[in-house]
Amino acid sequence: MNYQSILERIYREIRPFAREGRQADYIPALAEVDPDKFGICIDTIDGRQYMLGDASERFSIQSITKVFSLAAALSIEGEELWRRVGREPSGTTFNSLIQLEAERGIPRNPFINAGAIVVADRLMSHYGDYERRYIDFVREICGNPTVDYNRAVAASEREKAYLNAAIANLLKYHGNLSGDIEQVLHFYFMQCSVEMSCRDLSHAFMAFADHRSPFRFGEVSLTMSEVKRINAIMQTCGFYDEAGEFSYLVGLPGKSGVGGGIAAVCPLKYSVTVWSPRLNSKGNSVMGMKALELLTTYTEESIF
Amino acid sequence: MNYQSILERIYREIRPFAREGRQADYIPALAEVDPDKFGICIDTIDGRQYMLGDASERFSIQSITKVFSLAAALSIEGEELWRRVGREPSGTTFNSLIQLEAERGIPRNPFINAGAIVVADRLMSHYGDYERRYIDFVREICGNPTVDYNRAVAASEREKAYLNAAIANLLKYHGNLSGDIEQVLHFYFMQCSVEMSCRDLSHAFMAFADHRSPFRFGEVSLTMSEVKRINAIMQTCGFYDEAGEFSYLVGLPGKSGVGGGIAAVCPLKYSVTVWSPRLNSKGNSVMGMKALELLTTYTEESIF
Amino acid sequence: MNYQSILERIYREIRPFAREGRQADYIPALAEVDPDKFGICIDTIDGRQYMLGDASERFSIQSITKVFSLAAALSIEGEELWRRVGREPSGTTFNSLIQLEAERGIPRNPFINAGAIVVADRLMSHYGDYERRYIDFVREICGNPTVDYNRAVAASEREKAYLNAAIANLLKYHGNLSGDIEQVLHFYFMQCSVEMSCRDLSHAFMAFADHRSPFRFGEVSLTMSEVKRINAIMQTCGFYDEAGEFSYLVGLPGKSGVGGGIAAVCPLKYSVTVWSPRLNSKGNSVMGMKALELLTTYTEESIF
Amino acid sequence: MNYQSILERIYREIRPFAREGRQADYIPALAEVDPDKFGICIDTIDGRQYMLGDASERFSIQSITKVFSLAAALSIEGEELWRRVGREPSGTTFNSLIQLEAERGIPRNPFINAGAIVVADRLMSHYGDYERRYIDFVREICGNPTVDYNRAVAASEREKAYLNAAIANLLKYHGNLSGDIEQVLHFYFMQCSVEMSCRDLSHAFMAFADHRSPFRFGEVSLTMSEVKRINAIMQTCGFYDEAGEFSYLVGLPGKSGVGGGIAAVCPLKYSVTVWSPRLNSKGNSVMGMKALELLTTYTEESIF
Repeated sequence: MNYQSILERIYREIRPFAREGRQADYIPALAEVDPDKFGICIDTIDGRQYMLGDASERFSIQSITKVFSLAAALSIEGEELWRRVGREPSGTTFNSLIQLEAERGIPRNPFINAGAIVVADRLMSHYGDYERRYIDFVREICGNPTVDYNRAVAASEREKAYLNAAIANLLKYHGNLSGDIEQVLHFYFMQCSVEMSCRDLSHAFMAFADHRSPFRFGEVSLTMSEVKRINAIMQTCGFYDEAGEFSYLVGLPGKSGVGGGIAAVCPLKYSVTVWSPRLNSKGNSVMGMKALELLTTYTEESIF
Repeated sequence: MNYQSILERIYREIRPFAREGRQADYIPALAEVDPDKFGICIDTIDGRQYMLGDASERFSIQSITKVFSLAAALSIEGEELWRRVGREPSGTTFNSLIQLEAERGIPRNPFINAGAIVVADRLMSHYGDYERRYIDFVREICGNPTVDYNRAVAASEREKAYLNAAIANLLKYHGNLSGDIEQVLHFYFMQCSVEMSCRDLSHAFMAFADHRSPFRFGEVSLTMSEVKRINAIMQTCGFYDEAGEFSYLVGLPGKSGVGGGIAAVCPLKYSVTVWSPRLNSKGNSVMGMKALELLTTYTEESIF
Repeated sequence: MNYQSILERIYREIRPFAREGRQADYIPALAEVDPDKFGICIDTIDGRQYMLGDASERFSIQSITKVFSLAAALSIEGEELWRRVGREPSGTTFNSLIQLEAERGIPRNPFINAGAIVVADRLMSHYGDYERRYIDFVREICGNPTVDYNRAVAASEREKAYLNAAIANLLKYHGNLSGDIEQVLHFYFMQCSVEMSCRDLSHAFMAFADHRSPFRFGEVSLTMSEVKRINAIMQTCGFYDEAGEFSYLVGLPGKSGVGGGIAAVCPLKYSVTVWSPRLNSKGNSVMGMKALELLTTYTEESIF
Repeated sequence: MNYQSILERIYREIRPFAREGRQADYIPALAEVDPDKFGICIDTIDGRQYMLGDASERFSIQSITKVFSLAAALSIEGEELWRRVGREPSGTTFNSLIQLEAERGIPRNPFINAGAIVVADRLMSHYGDYERRYIDFVREICGNPTVDYNRAVAASEREKAYLNAAIANLLKYHGNLSGDIEQVLHFYFMQCSVEMSCRDLSHAFMAFADHRSPFRFGEVSLTMSEVKRINAIMQTCGFYDEAGEFSYLVGLPGKSGVGGGIAAVCPLKYSVTVWSPRLNSKGNSVMGMKALELLTTYTEESIF
């Protein structure tokens, strides 16, 4: 498959969408990003890499971090984790409290904010030095020891985080948060503030695409079955209330972030990351979604 | 892959679950089925077939029929269909009215009852002789001209169908039903009353698994992309509020019915149907779910 | 108290609101009413009557009828009635199905549509010749033997009644409807189609205002305590999701209808009916609400 | 009316309910109260006072304080207040977040927790020395300069207040909270921690019952119309999702607190306070509700 020429074709064809949507602006760090950045990177199972545009530039991975957190928590807790968080699509926006109240503090899945806050709490309850250990894992899985948190972004997020603070308090009320609320939120925002490039992310997601290779990165290790199940959760829950749409149009397990990134995998074939900051009304990258739709159309490679 | 010996191993290992759950009993026709029936059938892309147990006995396919209806409606209407029905997981039980009221008559997806009623209405609005044409399509796709409706089951369902009648009235109120309510419900229950064996269903679902072959059955034809997208919808919406669970445990696009059947596909590898009437609290076959979980575990073949 | 001059003052002061709102138009019979009609009538406990405008002209009383139905059902069933229907404000619009699904078929109160349909079913289950007996009671309580149903209005309502049919089916599903759905809906719409003038309604509502006199009209009789409790329900539930607003601005138990009528009582002082077809977004008469607000302001007579 | 003998009769007749329900125990201060306390006090408009039991003993007034807060806020902001908080019954429990999310941060009324937190914020935004000024107003209205906050109770409440903290964060997120979240919550719990006796409360509520006398207590003053409207809100919203029940059974505007107190008014007739710590499942005093039901039955004096 000539992925490079497919990437170039995609790049031409998504240009009409270049002005659609708006980048996230709820914190200055995201508002100041150049909205016209575009990068894409594919890693294939046979070890090749194809890139285009700003694929080496770092951006705030935001919710994509939730895939790494889930992997780390599953490694520690195994199936126990599912007593604290579900694995069903939520059918509501990523930051809704309604479901949480109705279901007495068990978030629908680990990729909505409530679920990711529970996952952060789980990591904290096991790890002493959790922030260092989290970034160590991320550096291992992406193979880039220079990847880091952006502490200014994390601090800035916490300041505006009334909704997440509401969620954390509600979780605490229902007995589903062991740690101190402020500390859990601090760790959660640290995770979201990690900055990586498309290259870094594609490298990292190859660990999910290539589930026949052992998943062992620093102290985090998963069985093949666990890796596949994380892919399954990405598939049904990775795009909030647009999960069905992404599944329908693209047909790959993936995870998006409000920084404009989307990372996805075609198991046993490739991992792909795309970055374009302008978001649609659901908080997913407009050009990113379009690029991936074309990718699975032209390669005829999706999970379906 | 020695599927036959895998089937035999699965059959032994699921025996401990043989008494769990209860068969549907809201109509006599379902209540009278022997709850201890069990059949499974795999069709592989290279044309082989593996069976075990009551795989040749017909049962009421119930909601599995919604996959056929969706295929027929997509063939006629194409993307227009999505103005009438969504393609997101519902996050609620299959017969809920809440989402329908909040979202003004657009069902969340074609596999919850509300969505399937809209799909039935779409078929009726195009087809004159819709009941005959529907069964003709089903016979073509499963390659068995003796497959038929069970009119007694359909009539018996209509009698108890207060909830579906409520849904149909609500759809009509919101302007999302063209036909006469009684006629639409009649057609909908006819579709659900179709009786097929595991063999019939596996044959039929091979049309979705083998999307490289043309999808053309009587007057229904779909592009490869459309077939894959139906698989995507099965993946995110095929098991109501247990879609995430099925995706997590089994990892195949599939569709269940309250008759105890589950049909699923592993694209470009195989289709599989299992039948066991005892249902869990979500309305899905207990042994069927377990058998398919073991199948993808032992074959290491799932979409993830 | 010089009620007549107060009525005249009110009439002058509400004129600026004369063009606000729109009359109900979901059925021709309501759409064809002259929207500029305005009538008001007060009956005082000492037997006087004060009128102004179109107070003697009949209009479709619509949901005001629910007060009469409740009185009749309470007379027959007593406290048993409350096993079938609640007496709490609904917090949602008058025709919502959401609460009904969540609370398993027990309508929140007898003045939302779902509750009134249950009440109609209760009357039918006791009365053989329920339509005649209902109108007999209404004629007795308003002291006007010429009052009648408008069968054309009732028939026309049934034709468009998809939402009420959805509600009735949902009630039936939850086991809270004994009668045949079509018959119950027919009776319900008959009740709503009763035509009365402001004079008729004020006379009728005096039975609720003057609870020291025996409440006995044909075969319907209530204790003083029951009459007061019907007033209490009017107070908390009579204006759907504007019940708090009416209580705040007017301070009287009352009931509105989409025909533009509002009937209210000031216990042991007066009953009052106002009619003006233009409705606000909540389905309550704009000028009617305003007129009653001024009435309790100028008379300083409200229940608070 | 011989209120004293009526009180004695009531006291005898409610005895069978003496063991029903449980006192609040979410904080030690409430859990340690003797659950068998019972006091009742009536103040009549002609200046008499009737008491029985522990009517002079102070208890934690909890949510009854919301009536005083509303009065103070209405005095400062007038109708402006209603841009921040509604005046409709909520139809949900007192601490629900669902309605708040759906209606974008405008609490349904000032008597659910969310609404009272907004009211506290309003007071803080106008008052410099708000805690002193609030208690000054309460002392004035009850005519007892020794009434005070219980700071230990307030502190203890804050510790467990995850749900209220969730609410405050959600309000802040929706832009409906000006002050600092911690300070607003601190003030809110201070208000709830006020301790008064039945005598104190009946004296204070006479200001609402006797709306013909000027409402002027320290710096808080209201028009007659405003006083009546506070009564109207007590009527429709004072008992959370049991407002309809209290209106039906008792027929008086009133407000309850989880300390077991209920204060109510019969306008132009009397004010009444009852205290009994055991609560029903809705958080309202079992014997308190029963006593007031009998009071309006035997006196035949209610607003209906």
